[in-house]
Amino acid sequence: MIREYDKLFKYFGIKPFKDVLPELRKVAEPHHLMRRGIIFGHRDFEKVIDALKTGKKFAILTGLMPSGRMHFGHKMVIDQVIYYQGLGAEIFIAIADIEAYAVRKISREDVINYAVNEYVANYLALGLKRERLHIYFQSNYAKEYYRLLQMFSRKVTMAELRDIYGEDVGPGKIMSVLTQMADILHPQLKHFGGFDVVLVPVGPDQDPHLRLSRDVADRYASELGLKRPASTYHRFMTGLLGGKMSSSKPESYIALTDDPDVAVAKLMKALTGGRPTAAEQRRLGGEPEKCPVYEMLSYHLITDDRELEKVYTRCRSGEMLCGQCKREAAERLRKFLEEHQRRLERARNIVDKVVDIPDF
Amino acid sequence: MIREYDKLFKYFGIKPFKDVLPELRKVAEPHHLMRRGIIFGHRDFEKVIDALKTGKKFAILTGLMPSGRMHFGHKMVIDQVIYYQGLGAEIFIAIADIEAYAVRKISREDVINYAVNEYVANYLALGLKRERLHIYFQSNYAKEYYRLLQMFSRKVTMAELRDIYGEDVGPGKIMSVLTQMADILHPQLKHFGGFDVVLVPVGPDQDPHLRLSRDVADRYASELGLKRPASTYHRFMTGLLGGKMSSSKPESYIALTDDPDVAVAKLMKALTGGRPTAAEQRRLGGEPEKCPVYEMLSYHLITDDRELEKVYTRCRSGEMLCGQCKREAAERLRKFLEEHQRRLERARNIVDKVVDIPDF
Repeated sequence: MIREYDKLFKYFGIKPFKDVLPELRKVAEPHHLMRRGIIFGHRDFEKVIDALKTGKKFAILTGLMPSGRMHFGHKMVIDQVIYYQGLGAEIFIAIADIEAYAVRKISREDVINYAVNEYVANYLALGLKRERLHIYFQSNYAKEYYRLLQMFSRKVTMAELRDIYGEDVGPGKIMSVLTQMADILHPQLKHFGGFDVVLVPVGPDQDPHLRLSRDVADRYASELGLKRPASTYHRFMTGLLGGKMSSSKPESYIALTDDPDVAVAKLMKALTGGRPTAAEQRRLGGEPEKCPVYEMLSYHLITDDRELEKVYTRCRSGEMLCGQCKREAAERLRKFLEEHQRRLERARNIVDKVVDIPDF
Repeated sequence: MIREYDKLFKYFGIKPFKDVLPELRKVAEPHHLMRRGIIFGHRDFEKVIDALKTGKKFAILTGLMPSGRMHFGHKMVIDQVIYYQGLGAEIFIAIADIEAYAVRKISREDVINYAVNEYVANYLALGLKRERLHIYFQSNYAKEYYRLLQMFSRKVTMAELRDIYGEDVGPGKIMSVLTQMADILHPQLKHFGGFDVVLVPVGPDQDPHLRLSRDVADRYASELGLKRPASTYHRFMTGLLGGKMSSSKPESYIALTDDPDVAVAKLMKALTGGRPTAAEQRRLGGEPEKCPVYEMLSYHLITDDRELEKVYTRCRSGEMLCGQCKREAAERLRKFLEEHQRRLERARNIVDKVVDIPDF
């Protein structure tokens, strides 16, 4: 996995995030995902640090794919967004309903329902504030945004789309890609606030879009004054049973709306970094680096670094076995979900004040 | 030429317009372009007649390509639009600025300038009223329209686009086509008035778009309640020197903003349906059916049928030779342009009240 990410450094010009941590520390306490190397790479993050230093305004752009339930794998992005919002960033959140509808072929009704009741409601419950916040459906936004995606069609070629997205790229995919380019670049337009510095926090699988959007920015630099966006890259969470976390396998993830009993049961069945026998584990220690339960703790359930280090040490030394660790993690998970789901109920009541819901 | 149009009847299901003239006459005096067979074909025009009979609301959709000057060849469409506006139709006019920019690669500045100062201003000077009128830039309209064009990307395939537009169809063309489908079908949406009956008057070269839009309507019939648009087909004007009227050959057309002296000079140099010698013409008569000057008269300069018939008879009988005919036509042309250009000056002052001009 880590070797996979190394390619991004080597071939695609992504830089290690740890190198910018010292400068960031001068202006803000880094997020625990940054401190722990979960956010591992960036392009042009210096622009964000510079904005923080000089008080220059900056924006965060993120997207969500409303094609199913929101789980802890999705939570990582919005945690970062909330962090930047706390630092004064303007937040733009694109609901990728057009990609969900035109490419993934989900009905409009389901798409809108997932977007509002799974994603946006959970975002608010997680602490996203309504100030400096623009959550929009790709199908329900401003004309200047649509003008941008229409204009981009002039300077993007079939050849490059095929290179990135495969030979059978069709109208739905092309529309989605152009729409996504507008998502990434529109906060720079005067109409949307004229944000010179826009940061897009993504998983490494999204980097081809980022590279294309940087190229598109260059192509429209003189015509529209567009600049390249900055981006950060975070590691993906492993599925609870190993392998990928996948929306089509409910046992691979814990959803933010899972009943706490169900969630705990999933966690208790999770793969760990434990050894074949208890005796062996007491002797060699566990391997938290390979452990989905440790990931849940370090990505989500323990924000205090010293507390997390205690867990790490107890595991690594063989002092704590997986059963005990899981029980402690389960308690944290249950507490988190119970509190979150209480906030979620209140969030559902204001969700339509935060996003304009399309009528078809 | 006429044989070319016959194919449309034979293979594509377009019906002769003359067949609906008697029914139309029961509710409205047909336009001179209809009476003279210049509008020669239709699909579903019965729906329009039915709307006129029952007082049901109906809409006209037309587009303009802001890639150069407006000439008499373009005037034919807006003459029809003005006719239908007089009969109570709601008028939608799409400025195809996205196609001009993304496919024809004209700068935004030129596109906007052509649209406003050539087309829209001339439309108003020709008599288009501001009531029940929606003139919009494709890049500067309502989100429900953009949602439509985004959604259409799901059910249109590369294969059919290649069939219609050629193998090298790219993102710009695809965006233009989807946008055009939204142009044709959006007046049916509740947001835009919910017009069940929408008529699109076009030249026969536009029929592939109409056929695609009818297919697209079928594909979204249950999801969005879309219905097939009706359409009419008019003959193209011949260029003044024979062949096509072409924007890239100023001597082939008379622009509505041509100086009357320049316009008259172009007309005086025009090809005619005359015979090689005056003697021959006196004996055999001229051939108005082949004459660009007679076209100018019958399409534009003489609306009274009896007056036009006099010209026809004097030509056909050999009584009037081309020189005389041209001098009379030139006088009509000069009078038309002088009056039109006076109205145009006033129109230019209100053009920004009629169309919302995009700021980039």
